[in-house]
Amino acid sequence: MVPSPTVLAFDVFGTVVVWYGSIEREVDALGLGVDAGAFALAWRAGYRPAMARVRSGELGWTKIDALHRMILDDVVEQFGIGDRLDTAARRALNLAWHRLDPWPDAVEGLSRLKRRYMLCTLSNGNLGLLADMAKRAGLPWDLILSAEVFRHYKPDREAYLGVCEVFDLEPAQMMLVAAHHDDLEAARACGCRTAYVERPREFGPTIAQDVSPRPGNELHASDLRDLARQLGC
Amino acid sequence: MVPSPTVLAFDVFGTVVVWYGSIEREVDALGLGVDAGAFALAWRAGYRPAMARVRSGELGWTKIDALHRMILDDVVEQFGIGDRLDTAARRALNLAWHRLDPWPDAVEGLSRLKRRYMLCTLSNGNLGLLADMAKRAGLPWDLILSAEVFRHYKPDREAYLGVCEVFDLEPAQMMLVAAHHDDLEAARACGCRTAYVERPREFGPTIAQDVSPRPGNELHASDLRDLARQLGC
Repeated sequence: MVPSPTVLAFDVFGTVVVWYGSIEREVDALGLGVDAGAFALAWRAGYRPAMARVRSGELGWTKIDALHRMILDDVVEQFGIGDRLDTAARRALNLAWHRLDPWPDAVEGLSRLKRRYMLCTLSNGNLGLLADMAKRAGLPWDLILSAEVFRHYKPDREAYLGVCEVFDLEPAQMMLVAAHHDDLEAARACGCRTAYVERPREFGPTIAQDVSPRPGNELHASDLRDLARQLGC
Repeated sequence: MVPSPTVLAFDVFGTVVVWYGSIEREVDALGLGVDAGAFALAWRAGYRPAMARVRSGELGWTKIDALHRMILDDVVEQFGIGDRLDTAARRALNLAWHRLDPWPDAVEGLSRLKRRYMLCTLSNGNLGLLADMAKRAGLPWDLILSAEVFRHYKPDREAYLGVCEVFDLEPAQMMLVAAHHDDLEAARACGCRTAYVERPREFGPTIAQDVSPRPGNELHASDLRDLARQLGC
């Protein structure tokens, strides 16, 4: 049994909530006649390149709501439906990212972990998005932290070290929980501890993710209930 | 009946939690032989001047934990107990501000308001302090916002307008709830709505605050249960 961390910081998109199925559902409900799953994948595919423009300094600080909207404007053109979604409709659809559903194990797993640990988010999603999502889904965060607070997107060091500074902790007292190895690797490079969570269907039912254990992660959990169990909660 | 705001932003120290009695209790428990109530008042009296040094630019951004500690170092000298509190003891006592108790109406009032509104803090307290306080006291915030996020202490405009920006709201969709008229006036100057909450004993049992209604506040509540009632919750 390892000594306990003090704060668990969670990646959110994909780790705690389901973006593929949630976005697919919202796009499908618009009846635009497009492949809603492919639309969700295309929207998400623009996410890292958009953040990279902010991380490189090409764009000034821009929050995810605004990046999602820029990507959406491109994706509707790719799908040939630019003339069928006016500004109001795009604005409404963009907020689909505020309404992502939690994975089935998330609320129970977090609620159990919360009894013993301080739980925060460390998401590239903006604060308003994360607050709307938590309120709708019942995610019991003790503190919502975001790249928006630190003005640095993950995997910039400032994001991980920012969490430690907020709680006045050494990096080894913070554990990042995520379904993405690059995020976990960046946290470890800052001296933080890491827990990997398997989300084999993050990209939808037809794309299998490799969720096999990798060295470096202190914990490897099948879901957030399993993480709670491994942490004695 | 006025149209409803979307977000209620709460001042915290004095409005939601009791600083006088909480600090008095912690100081008293140390058995230092000082007047613990006077000590609490002296500590709090240093708060605005310390923030003024940050607001003026004399000090760079400094969070409240650090300001509280600077003030504490002065106050222990004033009370002649500098040699009786070592660094570790001062560090522990400084965290008393993370352990303030809620007013008796706060948890119920906030829980009722939360059903209908998005509830956030807008406090000069730092994020880690507010998260520790909320976890201990069971304060059901949807989002903890702090001067720390905006790098501006209230009553700087950037703090109030920062809340609106986080939620992508016009100022008139945000209502500040506070027991302090200067805070409320600054929010109104930004176009926000305001609700005053009576806390006649904020400064302890022997100092009465004038809590009579003043023009400008849209709502005047005797406590947070009364505010919930007035907002139909």
